[in-house]
Amino acid sequence: MTLAVRYLSARTLDTAPAENPPPGPGEAEIAPAYVGICGTDLHIFHGDMDARVAVPAVLGHEMSGRIVRVGAGVEGWSPGDAVTVMPLRWDDTCAACQAGHQHICRHLDFIGIDSPGAMQQRWAVPATTLVRLPRSLPLDHAALVEPTAVAVHDVGRAQVRHGEKAVVVGGGPVGILIALVARAAGADVRVVELSPHRRRIAQELGLAAWDPGADDVPELVRQWTGDAGADVAFEVSGAQGGVDTAVEVLGVRGRLCLVAIHARPREVNLHRFFWRELTLVGARLYDRSDFERAVTLVTDGTVPAERLISKVVPLTEAPAAFEALEGGGDVMKILVDCTDDARGAVQ
Amino acid sequence: MTLAVRYLSARTLDTAPAENPPPGPGEAEIAPAYVGICGTDLHIFHGDMDARVAVPAVLGHEMSGRIVRVGAGVEGWSPGDAVTVMPLRWDDTCAACQAGHQHICRHLDFIGIDSPGAMQQRWAVPATTLVRLPRSLPLDHAALVEPTAVAVHDVGRAQVRHGEKAVVVGGGPVGILIALVARAAGADVRVVELSPHRRRIAQELGLAAWDPGADDVPELVRQWTGDAGADVAFEVSGAQGGVDTAVEVLGVRGRLCLVAIHARPREVNLHRFFWRELTLVGARLYDRSDFERAVTLVTDGTVPAERLISKVVPLTEAPAAFEALEGGGDVMKILVDCTDDARGAVQ
Ligand SMILES: NC(=O)c1ccc[n+]([C@@H]2O[C@H](COP(=O)([O-])OP(=O)(O)OC[C@H]3O[C@@H](n4cnc5c(N)ncnc54)[C@H](O)[C@@H]3O)[C@@H](O)[C@H]2O)c1
Ligand SMILES: NC(=O)c1ccc[n+]([C@@H]2O[C@H](COP(=O)([O-])OP(=O)(O)OC[C@H]3O[C@@H](n4cnc5c(N)ncnc54)[C@H](O)[C@@H]3O)[C@@H](O)[C@H]2O)c1
Ligand SMILES: [Zn+2]
Ligand SMILES: [Zn+2]
Repeated sequence: MTLAVRYLSARTLDTAPAENPPPGPGEAEIAPAYVGICGTDLHIFHGDMDARVAVPAVLGHEMSGRIVRVGAGVEGWSPGDAVTVMPLRWDDTCAACQAGHQHICRHLDFIGIDSPGAMQQRWAVPATTLVRLPRSLPLDHAALVEPTAVAVHDVGRAQVRHGEKAVVVGGGPVGILIALVARAAGADVRVVELSPHRRRIAQELGLAAWDPGADDVPELVRQWTGDAGADVAFEVSGAQGGVDTAVEVLGVRGRLCLVAIHARPREVNLHRFFWRELTLVGARLYDRSDFERAVTLVTDGTVPAERLISKVVPLTEAPAAFEALEGGGDVMKILVDCTDDARGAVQ
Repeated sequence: MTLAVRYLSARTLDTAPAENPPPGPGEAEIAPAYVGICGTDLHIFHGDMDARVAVPAVLGHEMSGRIVRVGAGVEGWSPGDAVTVMPLRWDDTCAACQAGHQHICRHLDFIGIDSPGAMQQRWAVPATTLVRLPRSLPLDHAALVEPTAVAVHDVGRAQVRHGEKAVVVGGGPVGILIALVARAAGADVRVVELSPHRRRIAQELGLAAWDPGADDVPELVRQWTGDAGADVAFEVSGAQGGVDTAVEVLGVRGRLCLVAIHARPREVNLHRFFWRELTLVGARLYDRSDFERAVTLVTDGTVPAERLISKVVPLTEAPAAFEALEGGGDVMKILVDCTDDARGAVQ
């Protein structure tokens, strides 16, 4: 018997036995190893996404694992292969898909939100979503590939060039990954983050980090850029104050890449956009090339995954981990261990 | 003796005799013929820009005229040459200038705001600002070159391509010019404008125009674009409602070119920027290539200037024209006639 973590209603998760029908045609069944808990999972846990999520819902879309068996017609994959999953399914017919932007498909199925996710011991997905992992990549590190793919996409949308100065506003997991990927693209990077714990992690990674509560960030940017302003800013905080900072630090023709999800409209200094001819670029998810690049960056240590993993909890303790995360605290990324070993250990 | 229109204080203009010292080295003295009254001139008239404007201030930066005499070292220009002026002076040393964006110079002198403008009978400007007008272009039409250069710049910033669908929000002089230039670039264009008079002018120019007060603009855009949304929107209204419309009508990866000057921060639906990967591009003024292209478009009739000129008033009646414009009403562009003929006619 295998177990799954299930969202039932606001603030209620359980673990329950799950059915494991054989994978259908074109599907692969995976034994998830590690699954990251992300901000979206927390939003679901809070009950903010009940209109979108069908309960009981199995969460989880940042994962690594091994193939268990494959359905009819699946070629090139064998039991034991290490994989991660690009958790998107699209219709290939809407205007966005036709224009080549499948990740913005009008009818996008985000696996782990709109359909069952990875926080379980067996998980069937379309074989087309599989992404191969190198042998040398530990599976716990590989759980960071998905958020790293977000960062790769964002740095691409912002068209970061070698030698540019970039400010990342919000040093949560996604912001730190963006900072690392932008640095790998040759940018000189500063992080702006409220939490002392997260600023410390940034600094340990060699990323200078400023405190918007204490530092005069616009003035620091002026000194740093010789009064020119930053070339690029990333808004990864989701807060009004973060939007203000990101707009304010940019120099002439600066680009602001909007990554965070702002549930409400925000006040934006549009005069500054006119005056300095700024650009704002929205960024959502990733495509397959972003995902493959992310595998490389996590494998080669550009993204030092072990420094970002705060804690690994066994699947049976996932509900408690969500409750702990709700309270904030000194964490970056928490992984859920779905392997049989972990399960054995806690029973 | 020559006359100048002068701004003295909020809601107070007069006409007064002006000195005409010989043009300095590198300068040309022009006899302005026609000078358009633009929104910025009205802002100054309202007293909104007193912190920036040194009184008594001669307004006017949308102009045509003829060279009267040139100062030492000016080559290639002769008395009688028909010209317009690109009213910008920059320092060539700031970060923006060094990066090739002189029109965003940190110390930009916008002639007609920061230094004396064209609403007078003799006007000395640096010869570097002169732009030659073809013989075939009537001087009243040529007064529309400057706002047309704005439109050329904006359509360029939005990277409008042949066959794209573009929505222009705000059908004032600048919005209509953008619509005409975008159409010339091969776009299919719709105008959204509150004023029935301005919608009628748009329609007479072959531009379909919608009323945001009565029409369901997003629904009309859905029908028009087969549910895909517009490729490009221009925000040229300066109103919160205009921002909302421009964001709402865009499809996946749509570009919003921000032209209007928003004195206050605006609420922006940033979630839509994320969800559809929209881009917002600020646009300010123009460069010389925009100006030269604008001369061509006004000359070849792509911009049918005569349809946009609501009225021509003699220089001595400029103060009254500003007062009338304050009340709004059924106008598009009003020109001030600075020629001696006009002055003679009213004395
Ligand atoms: N575009 C996408 O496809 C995509 C993908 C994943 C996540 N996201 C979004 O990206 C954002 C970041 O994700 P995360 O998991 O890192 O979230 P997070 O909440 O863990 O991190 C946000 C960080 O911003 C900091 N912050 C808050 N206000 C700030 C301010 N005024 N200045 C500076 N820092 C401030 C917080 O302290 C926090 O550390 C979220 O909004 C998330 O929904 C977007
Ligand atoms: N970017 C630049 O360099 C530059 C240059 C010139 C002018 N501008 C700015 O461009 C804007 C337009 O200039 P203009 O001279 O045409 O101004 P204008 O005020 O004559 O025109 C604005 C038009 O928008 C309409 N409008 C108002 N609210 C609307 C709404 N919710 N929906 C649709 N239409 C609405 C008004 O009826 C009006 O006709 C101004 O803000 C001006 O300051 C910018
Ligand atoms: Zn689709
Ligand atoms: Zn300069």
